[in-house]
Amino acid sequence: MPKLFLFPVPMGESQPADVLPAINIDLIRGVRHFIVENVRSARRFIKACDRDIDVNICHFAELNRHTDPKDVAAMLQPMAEGHDMGVISEAGCPAIADPGADVVAIAQSRGYEVVPLVGPSSIVMSMMASGFNGQSFAFNGYLPIDADARSAKFKEMERRIRREHQTQIFIETPYRNNKLVAAIIRSMPADIKLCVASDITGPGQSIVTLPLSAWKSRKYDYDKVPTIFLLYK
Amino acid sequence: MPKLFLFPVPMGESQPADVLPAINIDLIRGVRHFIVENVRSARRFIKACDRDIDVNICHFAELNRHTDPKDVAAMLQPMAEGHDMGVISEAGCPAIADPGADVVAIAQSRGYEVVPLVGPSSIVMSMMASGFNGQSFAFNGYLPIDADARSAKFKEMERRIRREHQTQIFIETPYRNNKLVAAIIRSMPADIKLCVASDITGPGQSIVTLPLSAWKSRKYDYDKVPTIFLLYK
Repeated sequence: MPKLFLFPVPMGESQPADVLPAINIDLIRGVRHFIVENVRSARRFIKACDRDIDVNICHFAELNRHTDPKDVAAMLQPMAEGHDMGVISEAGCPAIADPGADVVAIAQSRGYEVVPLVGPSSIVMSMMASGFNGQSFAFNGYLPIDADARSAKFKEMERRIRREHQTQIFIETPYRNNKLVAAIIRSMPADIKLCVASDITGPGQSIVTLPLSAWKSRKYDYDKVPTIFLLYK
Repeated sequence: MPKLFLFPVPMGESQPADVLPAINIDLIRGVRHFIVENVRSARRFIKACDRDIDVNICHFAELNRHTDPKDVAAMLQPMAEGHDMGVISEAGCPAIADPGADVVAIAQSRGYEVVPLVGPSSIVMSMMASGFNGQSFAFNGYLPIDADARSAKFKEMERRIRREHQTQIFIETPYRNNKLVAAIIRSMPADIKLCVASDITGPGQSIVTLPLSAWKSRKYDYDKVPTIFLLYK
């Protein structure tokens, strides 16, 4: 039975050997058919794993937000012919906060074996280092952009923090990071704690948990750096 | 400035090199002071990373559910003296669904650098392989044991799946796994999908997503095997 391997990718500037188990690199050597978020960066990643892999004999189908959902099922055709396949996203873990989930769902519905591999996840790593409740947490993706919807979302997150003891995690487009921190300070009570985890696994890694009362007077600059945000009490 | 390293541990029977980046093993060689969920298994893990490490010169403080919360802060004393420290849990990622979070919170409040390392997380790996929505998901830990509270929790999870498109993740004491699957089939509508991810990274790894209508007639046995459960529509 063919397998669908889900290959995590380093985030930022880190190298495969620093953030991926050796077995991932052994496994990628055996795969010729890939479904990738971006062909160029996937080729670069495969070469960084092992520059002896000949990427010119590898087949790539691109799956990203420009893909027509109707085209996704056909991407698994090599598995019907008995080939293992690999899913590679731009950074971090495929199918988490990125497009791979659709193709995994189809593979599951066909009864194929899906094999997730270990790799860097900003959600898990920031959760570990935040000091917040790791028994109950929610990843919310991007917050709404509309001001009223965003403010309702802050209210709902506060409720779930206080009543359900549930850590709240979310992300933002990197050039809006500083604005988001300011909005959190403005919108949430001063006793709520914010963890900002920035450039995880990168040279500028910084993971800081403080109450909003302390963030208020703190200098920060997360502009254009991949960053993830966590709130708890 | 000393660092608090969070060392993930293999789950089940897998070996460090299969599920941990090489850098984790380099880093553990430099740490002499550990906060661990269980001293015996932590020593075994360190030896499995590199049997040349002399665990007899390592210091271990035990942090688990028997620990008095008042004793946690003192465990970080070696950092006050300038030593790096490491947190090691029983399996998987420290501070996620296990006791390390308290000590991380204290390290954060003292302004120490906390460094999470890459490793196996059953939450992320099952999420990746489920095919469910990875843009929004909640980890709920253990479900309530009381029948009424559990049934209310199922209702609430169904609401969040349908209205918020939020994948629901939870765990169970392994000897109750089969009972839990039966309870899910009984309690949730047949169109809801259940992913059961069992023995992740182990020799019996199985990650199966099916609608509850199909689980109803499927044979399964997850008794005493570490398993994680995900629900979505």
